[in-house]
Amino acid sequence: MRLKNIEFPSDLKRVPVEELQAIADELRDYIIDTLATHPGHLASSLGAVELAVALHYVFDTPDDKLVWDVGHQAYAHKILTGRREAFHTIRTYGGISGFPKMSESAYDAFGTGHSSTSISAALGMATASKLQGNTKRSHIAVIGDGALSGGEAFEALNNVGDSKANVLVVLNDNGISIDKAVGGLNSYLTRITSSRRYNRLKEQVWRRLDGSAGGRRHDHSLGFFQRLTSTAKTAALGGSNLFESLGIRYFGPMDGHDLPGLVEMLGRLKELEGPKLLHIVTTKGKGLRQAELNPVVYHAPGKFDIRTGDQVPSGNADTPPKYQEVFGRTIIELAVQNPAIVGITPAMATGCSLNLMMERMPERVFDVGIAEQHAVTFAAGLAAGGMLPFCNIYSSFAQRSYDQIVHDVALQRLPVVLCLDRAGLVGDDGPTHHGLFDLAALRPVPNLTICAPMDERELRNMMYSAQLPGGGPWVIRYPRGCSEHTEWQTPFEALEVGKGRCLREGCGDVAIVTIGTVGNDALKVASADVYDMRFLKPLDTGLLDRIAERGYRRIVTVEDGVRKGGFGEAVVDYLAEHHPEEAGKVKILAIGDEFVTHGPVSQLKHDCGIDLDAMRKAVTTND
Amino acid sequence: MRLKNIEFPSDLKRVPVEELQAIADELRDYIIDTLATHPGHLASSLGAVELAVALHYVFDTPDDKLVWDVGHQAYAHKILTGRREAFHTIRTYGGISGFPKMSESAYDAFGTGHSSTSISAALGMATASKLQGNTKRSHIAVIGDGALSGGEAFEALNNVGDSKANVLVVLNDNGISIDKAVGGLNSYLTRITSSRRYNRLKEQVWRRLDGSAGGRRHDHSLGFFQRLTSTAKTAALGGSNLFESLGIRYFGPMDGHDLPGLVEMLGRLKELEGPKLLHIVTTKGKGLRQAELNPVVYHAPGKFDIRTGDQVPSGNADTPPKYQEVFGRTIIELAVQNPAIVGITPAMATGCSLNLMMERMPERVFDVGIAEQHAVTFAAGLAAGGMLPFCNIYSSFAQRSYDQIVHDVALQRLPVVLCLDRAGLVGDDGPTHHGLFDLAALRPVPNLTICAPMDERELRNMMYSAQLPGGGPWVIRYPRGCSEHTEWQTPFEALEVGKGRCLREGCGDVAIVTIGTVGNDALKVASADVYDMRFLKPLDTGLLDRIAERGYRRIVTVEDGVRKGGFGEAVVDYLAEHHPEEAGKVKILAIGDEFVTHGPVSQLKHDCGIDLDAMRKAVTTND
Repeated sequence: MRLKNIEFPSDLKRVPVEELQAIADELRDYIIDTLATHPGHLASSLGAVELAVALHYVFDTPDDKLVWDVGHQAYAHKILTGRREAFHTIRTYGGISGFPKMSESAYDAFGTGHSSTSISAALGMATASKLQGNTKRSHIAVIGDGALSGGEAFEALNNVGDSKANVLVVLNDNGISIDKAVGGLNSYLTRITSSRRYNRLKEQVWRRLDGSAGGRRHDHSLGFFQRLTSTAKTAALGGSNLFESLGIRYFGPMDGHDLPGLVEMLGRLKELEGPKLLHIVTTKGKGLRQAELNPVVYHAPGKFDIRTGDQVPSGNADTPPKYQEVFGRTIIELAVQNPAIVGITPAMATGCSLNLMMERMPERVFDVGIAEQHAVTFAAGLAAGGMLPFCNIYSSFAQRSYDQIVHDVALQRLPVVLCLDRAGLVGDDGPTHHGLFDLAALRPVPNLTICAPMDERELRNMMYSAQLPGGGPWVIRYPRGCSEHTEWQTPFEALEVGKGRCLREGCGDVAIVTIGTVGNDALKVASADVYDMRFLKPLDTGLLDRIAERGYRRIVTVEDGVRKGGFGEAVVDYLAEHHPEEAGKVKILAIGDEFVTHGPVSQLKHDCGIDLDAMRKAVTTND
Repeated sequence: MRLKNIEFPSDLKRVPVEELQAIADELRDYIIDTLATHPGHLASSLGAVELAVALHYVFDTPDDKLVWDVGHQAYAHKILTGRREAFHTIRTYGGISGFPKMSESAYDAFGTGHSSTSISAALGMATASKLQGNTKRSHIAVIGDGALSGGEAFEALNNVGDSKANVLVVLNDNGISIDKAVGGLNSYLTRITSSRRYNRLKEQVWRRLDGSAGGRRHDHSLGFFQRLTSTAKTAALGGSNLFESLGIRYFGPMDGHDLPGLVEMLGRLKELEGPKLLHIVTTKGKGLRQAELNPVVYHAPGKFDIRTGDQVPSGNADTPPKYQEVFGRTIIELAVQNPAIVGITPAMATGCSLNLMMERMPERVFDVGIAEQHAVTFAAGLAAGGMLPFCNIYSSFAQRSYDQIVHDVALQRLPVVLCLDRAGLVGDDGPTHHGLFDLAALRPVPNLTICAPMDERELRNMMYSAQLPGGGPWVIRYPRGCSEHTEWQTPFEALEVGKGRCLREGCGDVAIVTIGTVGNDALKVASADVYDMRFLKPLDTGLLDRIAERGYRRIVTVEDGVRKGGFGEAVVDYLAEHHPEEAGKVKILAIGDEFVTHGPVSQLKHDCGIDLDAMRKAVTTND
């Protein structure tokens, strides 16, 4: 049997167990080959190949429910469940999603993308099965050690342990999040897996199990196995087990690349009712030397050479730096001047470039793990203690900390600078990762200053202005990817809070009023005047008065965020109240009331009607 | 020394340790006496009297930082820190807040109200101290066992365990949240505290400590103590300790009403650097018989008889039922008819009246503990499994689950009915608890149907309509407190999604357009036409067309939510695009861009300009 003969798990089930590893090897090569030219989340998926094979071999998907937390690691799962041929389209416009997606396949039991939701979802489905009288169905959450640090995962474990539900949590422990894993939990897992005494006893357990396989009843063997591992754990660890504290039967740790071992273990666990957790240890990037050695870089490496594994260089010296690099280098500049500044990231140090500051002044940067809620309240605590934290969170992940932004930062007017990275359309990662709600969701929150830079020089000036005395809480949102200028390291300039700017006046009878980087496209519409508002809040009502008084034929607002509650509505609300004649002239270009798919940002901007074409059309027609 | 001589902790410190209990007794009486006629959070505070006395006796507040999680239990703290005389004004308009509040007192190191933030905040402050070179300052988070189930608390523990920061977590374990505590963690704490073997060994520990007090160095004794408790724990529990798994030194459990014991223990812990957790066991409602027996009712009992402790009855048979009761009884009616319906509450079963359904059909109601994130994804999982969950969350707490609403429910169009209780102004609990952001924050989220009933009959019909086939995700938001009609149990009527209604037409040249219960006040403005939009989303554009075409002199919108991004702006946005002449006629009555204080709802409505007076003024003037 070869991979090309496997369309669905039913095909896989016909493979003898001893031939499974060959399938896994082919799968791994297929993933590497495909991602070399079709970039995606490489290293996580390479680490979970054997697990995906074993799960589909043992369980009866899609009737048994399988939820992949985050979903980065689910590529082998996709290939084994009807999407082998389509796999090269992953994360491309019109192609399959980079994450599990219910509407894409019945095998994707629950959509993911954000972290730490899988156990809650699996418990929900398990509870549904129980209420419907189905006591045999299995409900499996596969969660990484990084995702386990997210608070929702703990909330779910706390409930799983109290339930009698058929939930199997597979803890896929590779010791790494996207960056290096952090936190007490991680140290704890390392202690478990590295304890020599523990592992010696575990070997004995396995030997005993091997001897007793065959005709014995599964649950009987399991009972023995559990007793023995329990003894082993007590002996090796002073007995502490966090999961059993919560009422969840714990199995492991075991080698997550030992396919026959996984098949045997999962087969036993399948027969065991109630909540249980299997701890497997895997190597992120398994099978590609560079990825194993450098899983942070190879988390999503872009294109790479299939023979050497080396990354294919992209861009060149003349390309403007990414906004991320500008952020990462600018915060160092500011921190050198202002000793109160600290940096905080929830597990995205490399992605947001706080790793640069971490190298330079490690005691002033805090990677708190995947824990957006904690990140924000921790920042608020630091601010209450006299520091000036820059808390960098991807826009869509900041949705996790909405309450903390309201309740801990804004209500108390604490000087936290919330830097929302990857705001607007992010491209290939799609609907779970676009940062489209930030402006609308935060606009109603009192005490916040909210701004968006048009280019990287403005980003620098906003960061500089935010840390000046008396600033209070600031939100700065900026996009993923390249900025505008190669010469970006301009001297800092203090921006007046709530003041926009006129970029061009006297060119036509239409005003384009923008916030953020869409202003760069607006400048390409030669026949229009252009205003960059800079601040969503406070809104520059003086500038709006000036625009109103000029009596334009039309006022076009543009933003890369949702229309409902966003920037355009803020402008209309103000004009309707203070310049009633002008409100009806406003044409809002913004994201409509639908989730936006994945694809190139330029394509998505076009589809959403916020690109240069849409601006030109809005300026020249009355549509 | 008497309580009346104690203004600040400096006074308390002059009391000999053997006289502290007398102060605590006075404090307890003072709280009971005051709350009998000035309602507040009684039972939690009674349980934490000795703890508050001991903490201020031992630590050097406000230089040492003390954070009370949630803050319900902080009344003794308030009385001991300059607010004894003002205590009778608690939760009244212009009086002191029911929660710790930084702007109220330097002793309130961090404001609370929502649950599970204290450890994050304390770690932030401890980290600030460390960076500033202060290694002696203590940072204390007092957190209940209920609040510990919130995911943010776990995220924080995970970081505390990894830090070297001077954080002391005091786990105030009373085995009860607001309702009975739930979850694996709670069972675990019960196992620890009820283990006979454990407690016997603990006694020996204490005896040994008593013998060794006096001249010995604190840290030496502690070392001994730790070794011994560690042995005791291993023996009694098979050694599992959740907190130590995370890298936090664990002490306890100990009696939280043993004041000399607390003083001694806290004194020792004060000298011990690094992260540590003290587990104390207290009785919620301690000192008032009825409150001890029924801590759920006496969590916030309203007025009660100071001699008997009995609650003073309020209201009478002719009063319309509370919206909460209507919700609680209606979901049972629906669940009887529709076997797919289940109920979910994050620890507010009594508050939202799901306790009624819990009694009637216990297997179909889930109290998930203080865990709003899990509550929503769990609901999404249930829905993915074919159930129809009604997930009831207080509006302001739902901010905790914003991302789950977006990412797990809305994006996947899962039929979850999110019932946002205590929407709008809640009154005495103030800014942390008002439900003012829900409409604005959820309006931009695609796929959601969002509605607000004008009265309890509409609430019933909305609940009924939400569970009809093909409904997708619904949000129903309704206020705290009494509804409108005594005869409320009217037959169900299916509402057309996105259709508002004309309540009165032809009465004047002004239209009042409302959503939610503010419509009842609008009907009292005799000279205006009144339209109840019912749905924020989809917005009834047909009804808006009709209103626009009638050519009113003015269109007044009213909502009990924030203006920015809310209902009024939705109306203006639509009118500006489709009826440009009309947009300028709109006067929006909504909550302005400030957090709203605590006080009677009627007063707050007046201050915010959304009461009957404001409507009358908007109708009769052009302001």
